Formats: sequence, structure tokens, C-alpha cells
Amino acid sequence: MKYDVAIIGTGPAGLSAALNLKLHNKSVIWFGSKDLSSKVGKSEKIANYPGVSMVSGQALNETFQAQIEEAGLEITDKQVTTVLASRSGFMLQGGMDIYEAKALLLATGAVSAKGFPGEESLLGSGVSYCATCDGFLYKGKTIAVYCGSKRFEHEVTYLAELAEKVYLYTPYKDTGAFPDNVVVNDGKMKEVHGAMKVSGVALADGREVETDGVFILRDAVAPSTLVKGLEIDGADIVVDRGMRTNKPGVFAAGDCTGRPYQITKATGEGNIAAHSIVEYLAELEKEEA
Amino acid sequence: MKYDVAIIGTGPAGLSAALNLKLHNKSVIWFGSKDLSSKVGKSEKIANYPGVSMVSGQALNETFQAQIEEAGLEITDKQVTTVLASRSGFMLQGGMDIYEAKALLLATGAVSAKGFPGEESLLGSGVSYCATCDGFLYKGKTIAVYCGSKRFEHEVTYLAELAEKVYLYTPYKDTGAFPDNVVVNDGKMKEVHGAMKVSGVALADGREVETDGVFILRDAVAPSTLVKGLEIDGADIVVDRGMRTNKPGVFAAGDCTGRPYQITKATGEGNIAAHSIVEYLAELEKEEA
Repeated sequence: MKYDVAIIGTGPAGLSAALNLKLHNKSVIWFGSKDLSSKVGKSEKIANYPGVSMVSGQALNETFQAQIEEAGLEITDKQVTTVLASRSGFMLQGGMDIYEAKALLLATGAVSAKGFPGEESLLGSGVSYCATCDGFLYKGKTIAVYCGSKRFEHEVTYLAELAEKVYLYTPYKDTGAFPDNVVVNDGKMKEVHGAMKVSGVALADGREVETDGVFILRDAVAPSTLVKGLEIDGADIVVDRGMRTNKPGVFAAGDCTGRPYQITKATGEGNIAAHSIVEYLAELEKEEA
Repeated sequence: MKYDVAIIGTGPAGLSAALNLKLHNKSVIWFGSKDLSSKVGKSEKIANYPGVSMVSGQALNETFQAQIEEAGLEITDKQVTTVLASRSGFMLQGGMDIYEAKALLLATGAVSAKGFPGEESLLGSGVSYCATCDGFLYKGKTIAVYCGSKRFEHEVTYLAELAEKVYLYTPYKDTGAFPDNVVVNDGKMKEVHGAMKVSGVALADGREVETDGVFILRDAVAPSTLVKGLEIDGADIVVDRGMRTNKPGVFAAGDCTGRPYQITKATGEGNIAAHSIVEYLAELEKEEA
């Protein structure tokens, strides 16, 4: 099935767009965490969201969940690791599956635009975003894993069952329990090294760790890595007032388009993006007719 | 007192901006109807506002009112009829009073960009937006009044006490009771006529009505009339991604910047505008220091 729209990101921007696209009877494949935005969830009190008085982030996320259910929307809890643009739309790799969509909305939140130095240039040459896709390549070998969120720890465990040794690096402290062949946070991962192929990772303290591969597990792949040729300014996806990027059919909304990092801004942009996407799909239909 | 910011409009965009500016400890003078947006109020069911599930417009406006109270915001229920830009900021005429502000946010809703043909060119030459300001000029004379909302009917009554004859035109049907010298909706007002001074109004059916003056009472004065030199595209105020217009210190948000005419879009833009205004005020302070 070819969807009208693929949305990446289940924060406020993605939600706002999804609600509107559903109202416009568009078919939507929506990738991201079923727990929605952890950044929203951690907000103690939100004082400036019009229409909801002094709400906690957790309560707001609960209302978002109710609205998702009411609207009959579904979330596909997979990380999209690659997007290919073709004449007829977009092919997305999510886990081991391939999805097709006519238009794409990036609502990935504020992620580092470039990832680790070396990450983008060595992607596919020892750098992988997908444990289930590429894990088997490292049977009996040594790998480094950057795990950006507790959500992905089960993938670390999976990789530890295949690899001989795993050097794990996480940006958070309360890591779960892992098999004995996992070295947890012995240093802070800083760079991916290698010429034609990954040779290892460099740590913040200057040490080098030799590995055969590097897995990078993050909530969102950097947009410039995900969509080749996407115009970026600093860390922000460049969009016009209609939330259109420089790539036809690719739209962006929310924190990934820049400051202010605010829920209200994100929902507003998601709304605008949805309307621009509806227009874009109508144009496509005209061209096809 | 010179305010940091003057906001014109009490719909979702103005509210979102006001909440955020208050959080940033900015002094705000906020013009518009204390009843907030009647367009929102009339919405039967809103299905696409993230964070508020299936809400009526009336209920949403009630929450808005509660948030205004919580934030300690006040609404000045006056129509701003003239804005003058000077080197040191803005002078606004609201009713018979003059207000000063360093920055200006237009959140006036979707209003006709140009008003009636002849309206802008004859403003101050027989066309007035303010009954209490200019009514005395028409003692014993004949005037036409365009009353855009029931809110302004008391001003029509006031004018009828001064003028000998009043031709009243309204876009709605259930007009209130007026003195005998008021002719209610004998035709549909279409244009303001006059060379150097108002000579009368033209009706949709081709008739001409001779008058000495024309009062135009509307929720919002067309932005291009309000702020001279403001860049407009069709009926929309042209803004950049930070909701900045072409005039330094003048920002715009909500329906007045164009489609989609959506509450979520309006609150999002109000949020962005508030952050841009905070930046602008910081720059001003640096320059003054």
C-alpha cells in the first residue's frame, strides 16, 4: 500500500499534522514512539499553551493519546533509518520493512543536524542505524553502540547476543542490565573513525576504541542524513511559511525547523504543514490526471 | 506609560502572544473585544486542536478567559484606529486615548485588506473610524454609518443623537432599535465617494446616497490602513518565519497573515511572534545602552 503521507515523529508537531490529515481523509503512516514526546512528558507545568490551563506535560500527553484514539490514528513504533526519493514519491526503511508514501513530513524534534563526526560519511561502511537489519554482519566481532534512549536497550541486548564484545555509550545514566560482554559507558563517545570503513570510535578523553562497526540508535536520525540534499541552516531544517522544505513533497514542522522550542509553535506548524500537504497531494492528482 | 508591546486582537493569536510576553515579564497593552474571538465562539466542535479533545468554541473561549485571568492579563476594549511609527516606537489611537509601545503585534484576524473603495483615500476627509472622536463634527448633518458588529451599535445611537440623519448599513440582520432619524439597511453599502472630501456612499444596487461624512465601525481596521507602508499580499500581511513584517518592530500572527484559518495555526504564530518580539526588545535595549 502506498500511503498519502508518511509522518516521522510523534511529538506535538506530528500529532497536529496527523489529526488534520486524518480529517482530510488522507492515509497516513506515522512513525515514532507510542509514548509520544518524552520532552513534553517531562514538563512539570505548561503555563503558555492556549486552551489548556496550567497543565503538566504528562497530562497533556494523555490528552494527546486520547485524541489519537478518537481520530482512529495508529503509530508505527519503528525508527526510519533511510528515505529514498523517487519520481513517484518516497520509499522509507523502518526497521526491516519498506514503506511507500507520496509526501513526507519530518517532525523529528530538535536533533543534532550532523550526528557524530564521521557518522554520515561512514554510514553503510560500518555505521548502522538498525540493529535488526545489520546485526548479523557483526557475529563474533567487536562493535560500539550509541544508545540515545532507554527505548532502544532491547536492541543493545540483541546485538550483545551476536557480537563478541559491545562497547555501549549512552547519554543517560540509569542504564539497564546487560550481558557480561557489554562494557557500559567506559568514557563518552565523541567521533566515529575510519577511512573507507569504520576502524573504531574516539572518546572525549582522547582514547581510541577499535571496533568493526558502530551502531547508532537514536529517536531520530539527523534530517540531513535521512533525506539527501535537504537544506539545513545550522541544525534547523529550512522551510518556507507553508512548512515546505527545498525538496518537493518533503515538509517539516516543530523543533526540527528551529526555535522557539515550544509546544504551541510545534502544533501550529504541524497544522500548517498538513494543509500544505493536502494542497501538494491535490496538485499531484491533477498532474497524474 | 510606554508599554513594551501593543497587541491588537484578542483571538487565539493575540492570546498566545500575550501569555508568552507576560511570562517574559513584558508590559503589554492589549486591544480588542473582551468577549474574545466571536469566530472561535461560534465553532460548534473543534476536532483538530491538540491538547483539547472535541471542544466547542464556546468552551475553548471560556478556558482562554480563565488563562487570561490566571496570567493577570487585561484587555482594553477599544478599537485602535491609527498607528503612527516614530523613531522611538509606536503611538496608537484607541478611542479618544493615545497609547505608546515599543513594538506592535497585529493579530487582527482575517479582515478585508483594503476596506471599501474610497475608504482609505478619504480617511480624515470625511471618513472616520471613531464616533466619540469625530461625532461632534457632524452635528445637524447627514452621515452614513457602516456598523460591522452589534458591539458598536451604542456608537450608532450616539451618532444619531448628534447628526440630523443617519444611513446605517450592517452586514448582519438582527439590528437593535434606533432613534427615528436612523434609516436602517436601505440597501447595501459598497463604496465611499468624494473627491477632496466625502460626498456620499454608493450602494450595491447603483443608487447614491449624499452624506457629509461616513463612519466605519469594524472589529479591525484593515492592516494596510492602520500601519502605513505595511507589505500586503492580496489580503494577507507578509511575514517571515519569525512573524516579522517589513516594518521594524511590527509583527503579525494569526488569520491576518493568511491561510490556513485555524486556531492551532494562530496560537502557534502568536507564540513565535512573542519570542521574536522578546528578541527585538533585547536588541532595542542594546542599542539604547
